[in-house]
Amino acid sequence: MKIRTLVASMMVIGFGAGIPAANAAEELVKPIKPPKQIDLGLVELGKKLYFDPRLSKSGFISCNSCHNLSMGGTDNIQTSIGDKWQQGPINAPTVLNSSLAIAQFWDGRAADLKAQAGGPIANPGEMAFTHTLAIGVLESIPEYVREFKVVFGKDKIDIDQVTTAIAEFEKTLVTPNSRFDQWLLGKKDALTADELAGWNLFKNSGCVACHNGEALGGTSFQKMGLVEPYKSASPADVTKGRAGVTGKDADRFNFKVPTLRNVELTYPYFHDGAVWTLKEAVDIMGRLQLGKKFTDKENAQIVAFLKTLTGEQPKFALPILPPSSDRTPKPNPFAK
Amino acid sequence: MKIRTLVASMMVIGFGAGIPAANAAEELVKPIKPPKQIDLGLVELGKKLYFDPRLSKSGFISCNSCHNLSMGGTDNIQTSIGDKWQQGPINAPTVLNSSLAIAQFWDGRAADLKAQAGGPIANPGEMAFTHTLAIGVLESIPEYVREFKVVFGKDKIDIDQVTTAIAEFEKTLVTPNSRFDQWLLGKKDALTADELAGWNLFKNSGCVACHNGEALGGTSFQKMGLVEPYKSASPADVTKGRAGVTGKDADRFNFKVPTLRNVELTYPYFHDGAVWTLKEAVDIMGRLQLGKKFTDKENAQIVAFLKTLTGEQPKFALPILPPSSDRTPKPNPFAK
Repeated sequence: MKIRTLVASMMVIGFGAGIPAANAAEELVKPIKPPKQIDLGLVELGKKLYFDPRLSKSGFISCNSCHNLSMGGTDNIQTSIGDKWQQGPINAPTVLNSSLAIAQFWDGRAADLKAQAGGPIANPGEMAFTHTLAIGVLESIPEYVREFKVVFGKDKIDIDQVTTAIAEFEKTLVTPNSRFDQWLLGKKDALTADELAGWNLFKNSGCVACHNGEALGGTSFQKMGLVEPYKSASPADVTKGRAGVTGKDADRFNFKVPTLRNVELTYPYFHDGAVWTLKEAVDIMGRLQLGKKFTDKENAQIVAFLKTLTGEQPKFALPILPPSSDRTPKPNPFAK
Repeated sequence: MKIRTLVASMMVIGFGAGIPAANAAEELVKPIKPPKQIDLGLVELGKKLYFDPRLSKSGFISCNSCHNLSMGGTDNIQTSIGDKWQQGPINAPTVLNSSLAIAQFWDGRAADLKAQAGGPIANPGEMAFTHTLAIGVLESIPEYVREFKVVFGKDKIDIDQVTTAIAEFEKTLVTPNSRFDQWLLGKKDALTADELAGWNLFKNSGCVACHNGEALGGTSFQKMGLVEPYKSASPADVTKGRAGVTGKDADRFNFKVPTLRNVELTYPYFHDGAVWTLKEAVDIMGRLQLGKKFTDKENAQIVAFLKTLTGEQPKFALPILPPSSDRTPKPNPFAK
């Protein structure tokens, strides 16, 4: 039980025992920094691909359908809607700050954003296409052919280029300058007294043991239902969590710790999207993960703190997609 | 048969009879002008509403889903995908330059954009919501409540305000400065020789009789299949066209003439979205509406001309939507 070890070790270094050790805890979280070493040609191409529903069989679903950048990089639905309105098995995690995570998907089955990006395109329950068909569509669109050639310097488009470009765009989707980050960087009036009390509760109760790093999450896999089991209506292959990747029974119910950045925008919560309010999410986390029942006042203070984690949302012009040509395969939304 | 009268009257004023009367024909089309007397507060609010899927039952479908501003204001699908993946009965017309049309929808059943905007929200085959439920969602979102109050100065949100704001945003969705407009305004090298030949064919063959005005269309209702009948697999209530509004049998198969602005982007074509290439669309229009079989060269020239009608696409930052509150009714995508 890694989390217990971590909580215990943090108690040794000073907090959780009633002595606020601000420096130690604050070293566990970091302000979000704007991305560095970004290739702007790749970003512009990746942005178009991210918004292009022609990467789906139906011609209707794009990356942005479920990771909607108008809505905190999520779809704000319990589980997503896929091709032919199929119900997804798991809540769509936010794409915002996802570049800061150790791995992608709830079970971490993709090592990075590039490895993730190809998944939904070919998933029969999501975009329901194939990589080969998606490349066929892109190669039939003269403006894409030109733009891929400019960016990659090759005559042929392949899926590796597509996922590289989407991942590069996604690296730009960070949300700096939240009020909490302003406070971390020294603006001591950036938080109200209640928000600050919430932050102290967050670190002293042990939340920060898992929700740490730049993204306040995404740095480890942890068991959902550590002290008390979490009851979920999710299908078995979802609830096994990380065990689906490692094959180890000990990893059952283990999930990547979600980022708390912009958590005010990324409802509903948990891998099964079963919880719609921060109040309820904080209560469940306290009881199931920490064996702690927060009072109404403590809960409200933690929720107030969590709302200070909303950063500047990515701001960019809606991309205009290049038109299909007479050779472009037609989308196929209603075929059996 | 209004169209015959119009073609005949134009022959009197000089063209269609082998004598190019450029001035007369060019008076029938106009360059697109940027919109005037726009209320920017309304536009910003309307833009958010246009992109907000919470106006649908599922929480997944927004105005932009089918009138996608990344894709010429259409969905580039034969007929649209509605709630629970229902197949729409008719091709989604472009929202671009729709403010210039005499009425909205293919059958003109809405007098203007404001009257149109409420339709899809409450249509069980589209967004499948009700106006009352949509208002309930908006009133539960504090930032919307504030913004509606700033813009309308009233304490309560109503559907009239919602459609007023969406319509105001849509008025900004015009596409000026196409190469054809540059040519109309005097830049005589804006068109190639083939494109100019296409324009001459377009006006001298009679296309301009219906496709005229600022939007090259949207100024009248005309019969689809005037000289030869058009065969469509569309349902009966769609093929009756304008007769569904007027109740007059003479209006069967009459549809609002679609705009040709940005026609390169708004495939597939016709009310049934059955035709995917401009080449085929021009051929069918020539034969069925004008009794004229264009040669391959003429067809290619007209197509080249049509592609000069692509104007500057609306450029704006993707709107960031205000988050729901704990009181917001949950979206309901999978309920029976």
